[in-house]
Amino acid sequence: MDDAAAARGEKLSSGNVNHLIDSVDCFLFDCDGVIWKGDTLIDGSKEALDMLRSKGKKLVFVTNNSRRSRSQYAKKFLSLGIPVTQDEIFSSSFAAAMYLKLIDFPPAKKVYVIGEEGILEELKLAGFTGIGGPEDGKKTAEFKANSLFEHDKSVGAVVVGLDQYINYYKLQYGTLCIRENPGCLFIATNRDAVGHMTDLQEWPGAGCMVAAICGATEKEPVVVGKPATFMMDFLLEKFKISTSRMCMVGDRLDTDILFGQNAGCKTLLVFSGVTTPSAFHDPSNHTHPDYYTDKLFDIVSLM
Amino acid sequence: MDDAAAARGEKLSSGNVNHLIDSVDCFLFDCDGVIWKGDTLIDGSKEALDMLRSKGKKLVFVTNNSRRSRSQYAKKFLSLGIPVTQDEIFSSSFAAAMYLKLIDFPPAKKVYVIGEEGILEELKLAGFTGIGGPEDGKKTAEFKANSLFEHDKSVGAVVVGLDQYINYYKLQYGTLCIRENPGCLFIATNRDAVGHMTDLQEWPGAGCMVAAICGATEKEPVVVGKPATFMMDFLLEKFKISTSRMCMVGDRLDTDILFGQNAGCKTLLVFSGVTTPSAFHDPSNHTHPDYYTDKLFDIVSLM
Repeated sequence: MDDAAAARGEKLSSGNVNHLIDSVDCFLFDCDGVIWKGDTLIDGSKEALDMLRSKGKKLVFVTNNSRRSRSQYAKKFLSLGIPVTQDEIFSSSFAAAMYLKLIDFPPAKKVYVIGEEGILEELKLAGFTGIGGPEDGKKTAEFKANSLFEHDKSVGAVVVGLDQYINYYKLQYGTLCIRENPGCLFIATNRDAVGHMTDLQEWPGAGCMVAAICGATEKEPVVVGKPATFMMDFLLEKFKISTSRMCMVGDRLDTDILFGQNAGCKTLLVFSGVTTPSAFHDPSNHTHPDYYTDKLFDIVSLM
Repeated sequence: MDDAAAARGEKLSSGNVNHLIDSVDCFLFDCDGVIWKGDTLIDGSKEALDMLRSKGKKLVFVTNNSRRSRSQYAKKFLSLGIPVTQDEIFSSSFAAAMYLKLIDFPPAKKVYVIGEEGILEELKLAGFTGIGGPEDGKKTAEFKANSLFEHDKSVGAVVVGLDQYINYYKLQYGTLCIRENPGCLFIATNRDAVGHMTDLQEWPGAGCMVAAICGATEKEPVVVGKPATFMMDFLLEKFKISTSRMCMVGDRLDTDILFGQNAGCKTLLVFSGVTTPSAFHDPSNHTHPDYYTDKLFDIVSLM
């Protein structure tokens, strides 16, 4: 292998797979594009996870998808035949709630949610009052003369994630809170442009809704999901494992691989999701994992 | 007046108003926040327009609001007691259609619209086939396994403007066209963060929907409305008036005043819309009109 190739990372092979596995105690996985696509398991990902568990590796699932809570994610794993405990899951919905805990957000204040059930559920578990979300998906905002669009002045934070039921009502509500409630926080679960919300194609991600609120408020959010380090800091505090003994496995350069690198983890890129081999090898790409391979199952087949 | 004050522009006064009027042959007006707020006329704006017409001044109304076509705008003016011809109106809906004309956009290709009736109407008048818009406001996009969200491969441009009925269906449709149809254009009517869609408060503007599509596509649009110079170039070509004999009157620094300055026009800022005196006088503001005043009617009362 020449130097240029080494700088781009090593292709996973029978020559280096055992070294990777032996040098890591904890594997962090992105889910969408690594374990599954939409509701379809990616071939061999269950076998790969089973093999790593059999070798005593700790597994953690770190997902930017905020639509579900951790318990809803555990159910999804189980429905795909993979037993996972809630403690092994770090979703950006959970991260948003943990961020508010960490900064001592006053529980008397409310949180307006542009997003889905998962965020509301995690907020509730953390002791916060979330409003908006799916409930506001059917509301409309009409431009009527002499009628004021009212918003709750006690909202102290707006959390924005992927929202399949985004509408003008929610955009106006969130915008008013951020623009008019003094000190109101603007928190983004993540800024992924698109994601494999179904197995056959990509859909606009939370980055779409977050950008819409940036566009209307002219403010930038605090991001709690990948590639921001918030989830990793939380995770390290909880598991006390050195990041040099961790490996982040993901399908996205701009979230997963950056997230792993920002924390000092090893990184493994898989081509079963968003990043294509041609985009990865393009000279314009400057994010390089330690290893790359087609799909998670390769760590089994190459052993 | 000291130099610092001069650098910020002159307050309109009985000492300079006649000079302003005498030095200008054509007044360009923003509408929302200058002539009206929502559906309510701003006091005295009709009298000011009447006075300027009586002095033989040419009047042109340049609005970033894409919700209406020029003929719909002419009707709105008339309903407020101000007779205006369609030729005096330059809306960003019209600008989007004229941009496609100018670049010889093939009429066989379709235009997907995230926006309202005005854009579709102007596209039709210019000989283009617009799809989407209000019709797609009631459609939903569900994340179903094995089902593909289909989009028209003949769409060659996506035009994004203010859309009161924005939804995930339209966001996915526009995103797919821009990401997957080769060469598909991304055109923004404008990027105003907010606007006085009703008289009592501001609402998210086209900048919100445009940012959402930027967030999902990771692309930047061609902007045809203020402060981009496209409308001005078109207007100069049509009226053949030197920009030094024009004055742009508006309530926004970042669109109206910049638009006038970019073209070499005189500029007059009014405080009857988005910009407050305190925001204008704040040291962080670096956009300075030639003149500023509370409201349009001041050009009559100060004479």
